[in-house]
Amino acid sequence: VTRNHSGPVRLADKFAAFDEPFAPRRIAHVNDFVVKAVKVRGEFVWHSHADTDEMFLVHRGSMTVRYRDRDVVLGPGQLHVVPRGIEHMTLADDTCEALIFEPAETINTGDSPGELTADDEPFI
Amino acid sequence: VTRNHSGPVRLADKFAAFDEPFAPRRIAHVNDFVVKAVKVRGEFVWHSHADTDEMFLVHRGSMTVRYRDRDVVLGPGQLHVVPRGIEHMTLADDTCEALIFEPAETINTGDSPGELTADDEPFI
Repeated sequence: VTRNHSGPVRLADKFAAFDEPFAPRRIAHVNDFVVKAVKVRGEFVWHSHADTDEMFLVHRGSMTVRYRDRDVVLGPGQLHVVPRGIEHMTLADDTCEALIFEPAETINTGDSPGELTADDEPFI
Repeated sequence: VTRNHSGPVRLADKFAAFDEPFAPRRIAHVNDFVVKAVKVRGEFVWHSHADTDEMFLVHRGSMTVRYRDRDVVLGPGQLHVVPRGIEHMTLADDTCEALIFEPAETINTGDSPGELTADDEPFI
């Protein structure tokens, strides 16, 4: 199994390779963690991850991490860590290109499986 | 202990807060992993990390990850994962602003302690 590319991973190339929103691609592995490229467009589902934090880092565009009591708005070059166990969702009016950093076994929809659950997150 | 900021973490602000090369600042935590902001300028020391991979993601400028048999040159928006156990060093002619993602307990100089070993990596 290929875990990592041997040369530079150009984020722009990775984001150019797919367009589907909320369909993460794996682009790098660091021990048991994975870096995923995701396009946020529209609204995701409310969910939480009981056992893990989750980091978002925006590459291009802007997105909102919505909590029940507040919004965190992220633009290019801005990151935010969602604490474990806290209900949240992501949303964006226009396409936002973001990286996600979390343990490789993390399910994108956490405790709310459904249509948006990504069964396969290919390595590209 | 503050592990994370509650709002957006602006990388530009974090990099503006210090200038010393090879003196990482912690800017976020994801479980037992940490995101560090580092300025690469000049040459680091050859070293390896026996037990962990290490990811570099360039924010601004460009840097080289040098292996004994090849160079990986990284520009803005490019990342690379150094595999565990592989001897490497980082270098840059001009200041390169980069993020490092690795387990929180990782020592920057790995198996080569010395003047460049960072004893304290403050959270900013």
